[in-house]
Amino acid sequence: MAEPVKKGLEGIVVAESRTSLVNGQEGKLVYQGYPIETLAENALFEEVVFLLWNERLPNRAELENLRSAIAQGAVLPQGIIDQMKTYPKNSNPMAVLRTVVSALAFYDPDSEDNGVEANRRKAIRLTGQITTACAAWNRIRKGQEPVGPRADLNLAQNFVYMLEGKGPDQTASDAINVYLVLLAEHGMNASTFASRVTVATGSDMHSGIVSGIGTLKGPSHGGANAEAMNMFLEIGDPSNVANWFKTNIKEGDRRIMGIGHRIYKALDPRAAILEEHARLLAESSGNLKWFQIAKQLADTARADSYFIERKLYPNVDYYSAIVLYTLNIDVDMFTPLFAMSRVAGWSAHVMEQFANNRLIRPDVTYTGPMDLPWVPVDQR
Amino acid sequence: MAEPVKKGLEGIVVAESRTSLVNGQEGKLVYQGYPIETLAENALFEEVVFLLWNERLPNRAELENLRSAIAQGAVLPQGIIDQMKTYPKNSNPMAVLRTVVSALAFYDPDSEDNGVEANRRKAIRLTGQITTACAAWNRIRKGQEPVGPRADLNLAQNFVYMLEGKGPDQTASDAINVYLVLLAEHGMNASTFASRVTVATGSDMHSGIVSGIGTLKGPSHGGANAEAMNMFLEIGDPSNVANWFKTNIKEGDRRIMGIGHRIYKALDPRAAILEEHARLLAESSGNLKWFQIAKQLADTARADSYFIERKLYPNVDYYSAIVLYTLNIDVDMFTPLFAMSRVAGWSAHVMEQFANNRLIRPDVTYTGPMDLPWVPVDQR
Repeated sequence: MAEPVKKGLEGIVVAESRTSLVNGQEGKLVYQGYPIETLAENALFEEVVFLLWNERLPNRAELENLRSAIAQGAVLPQGIIDQMKTYPKNSNPMAVLRTVVSALAFYDPDSEDNGVEANRRKAIRLTGQITTACAAWNRIRKGQEPVGPRADLNLAQNFVYMLEGKGPDQTASDAINVYLVLLAEHGMNASTFASRVTVATGSDMHSGIVSGIGTLKGPSHGGANAEAMNMFLEIGDPSNVANWFKTNIKEGDRRIMGIGHRIYKALDPRAAILEEHARLLAESSGNLKWFQIAKQLADTARADSYFIERKLYPNVDYYSAIVLYTLNIDVDMFTPLFAMSRVAGWSAHVMEQFANNRLIRPDVTYTGPMDLPWVPVDQR
Repeated sequence: MAEPVKKGLEGIVVAESRTSLVNGQEGKLVYQGYPIETLAENALFEEVVFLLWNERLPNRAELENLRSAIAQGAVLPQGIIDQMKTYPKNSNPMAVLRTVVSALAFYDPDSEDNGVEANRRKAIRLTGQITTACAAWNRIRKGQEPVGPRADLNLAQNFVYMLEGKGPDQTASDAINVYLVLLAEHGMNASTFASRVTVATGSDMHSGIVSGIGTLKGPSHGGANAEAMNMFLEIGDPSNVANWFKTNIKEGDRRIMGIGHRIYKALDPRAAILEEHARLLAESSGNLKWFQIAKQLADTARADSYFIERKLYPNVDYYSAIVLYTLNIDVDMFTPLFAMSRVAGWSAHVMEQFANNRLIRPDVTYTGPMDLPWVPVDQR
């Protein structure tokens, strides 16, 4: 009778998927046949979005159509902007994004239609709208007017433009584009799984993406990039790394945020790419301090037997923190930027789930009492 | 290498839990040791909430403290009321509830605190606030001013009072109380599982409850009560049942909404209790038509070999539709009422998950291509 409890569902295959392969033993990540290194070097984010939704790369006209559709769909309804202006300014940006995406359903003409074409239209709109919402909230909370998207820009450029209200700066938008490409999809991670559990009841795309955002928010998932940066800020200077590591990790009970991953037992291939981009951005900005802290801490861990034995390597969140910080992104916006990218993968999985659906309902072992008699309240 | 795919996670035990036992083979449901029949006959909803959160029934003072705390915590912040008034009036009520609960995090002083005491306080507030939000939205969308909760009422009474703006009528609030008791908790159902997946990343109570609401929304889960009522309305008269069944079920490819359940292969014990309450309410209201339609359709199915062989019985949604409709609840508010009750179970599971946490991340089998070469966009 008693089934073993699989608290983390490790090794339990819940779906077949054509979206991505994550090979944690070899440190490989492949989207629809293309290694992540190839995509990071060559692809526009919109090319990756097309790939994830269509199982092939777009030709020039298809790419331009999708870029244009996302840019045009990225406009937030006025009702959403008005609501955001009433939110308390110190609200958690992930709670804001979760709320905005939930409210966007009110204004989406396809919100209750789970058909293939409607889901595609919603995925296009949400991909653009989440980027606009991230940029808009960062301005609204500082008392600035939000800036809407430009129809002629790609998503990475639009983000930089809407955040700054000018530009977009080419170095910044190129770096954001690589970041978006790297984070777009990653197998059956917790937030993607939450999206699939949600829509498997026949709910809808907005509900699925909202569940994804709420799940990504946690520090053991998308929240880790902000946690990593806060750790680098706490260390404060490369000269403090050795002492910080000794006090907090070797003699203390803290963990290095951004090192270690449930799946990767080799170097996360995204971390390798982001390390190089973090170094280049740091060099071109003239501020090498944060990259040096991260690099020295990673090298210290790499030489330590505890980390070697447990195969703990920097994950995607570790160096992405340095990339985003060097681009002057506020630390509490790091996780919303993760969502800006991952909406591509979440929506691809939502569409896969609808195409071949089954209610996802695991089992539980009851460990409470049985057959208790009712005792009236005054006799308890 | 190739693991079998468990698309629905049937039989996979993801947790041990003291909240409830669902024995689908025998048609048994037990909350923390008490059979659902005992609770439906004797318990105030607040007693069940206390039971689910504390693993025992409250004494008189504890019950009054919880009732009072829920009633006082049920007040919506003015910012929430103001935002709700800007929502399009035809918005899906589940999308509204999902958005309101997400936005409530902005105003909750404990929103980012995942400690035991903070989670308890958030669970109390959300239990009251969800009821208030349901009643408020039903008034706001009709152009009426929302009515706030009274500190002297229990939750079922407060719902009827806030919905009508008067009363509360005793028959109605007693029926709502039974409904709330029956729906409060049900093992590892899809919405509860979504809540646990969400908080297992270290996210937070509001994110977990928001995922639960979005998941409950689907017609294969909480949305089934509204679907069942729409089916009864389509049938329209008891004299149409035989012909409707023949045309749509025997000769057509439709399903009877509210009959059949993933877990129950015997009569859902909640359905038996609700059938009796539906009959009593129908008799006292003088309008027996909808109960008779439901009863005749269930009897027709019970005598049909297809339903007998597959062990398809009415589930909780089937007769709850009749109960709620007889109480003059709008059909599209049925699923929000489910959420009003289930927040007790969701929050109990969220607290269990935090007490013994592990990231929930299943596996996936990649079925896409490998090692594709990059082709520049103009050569595709």
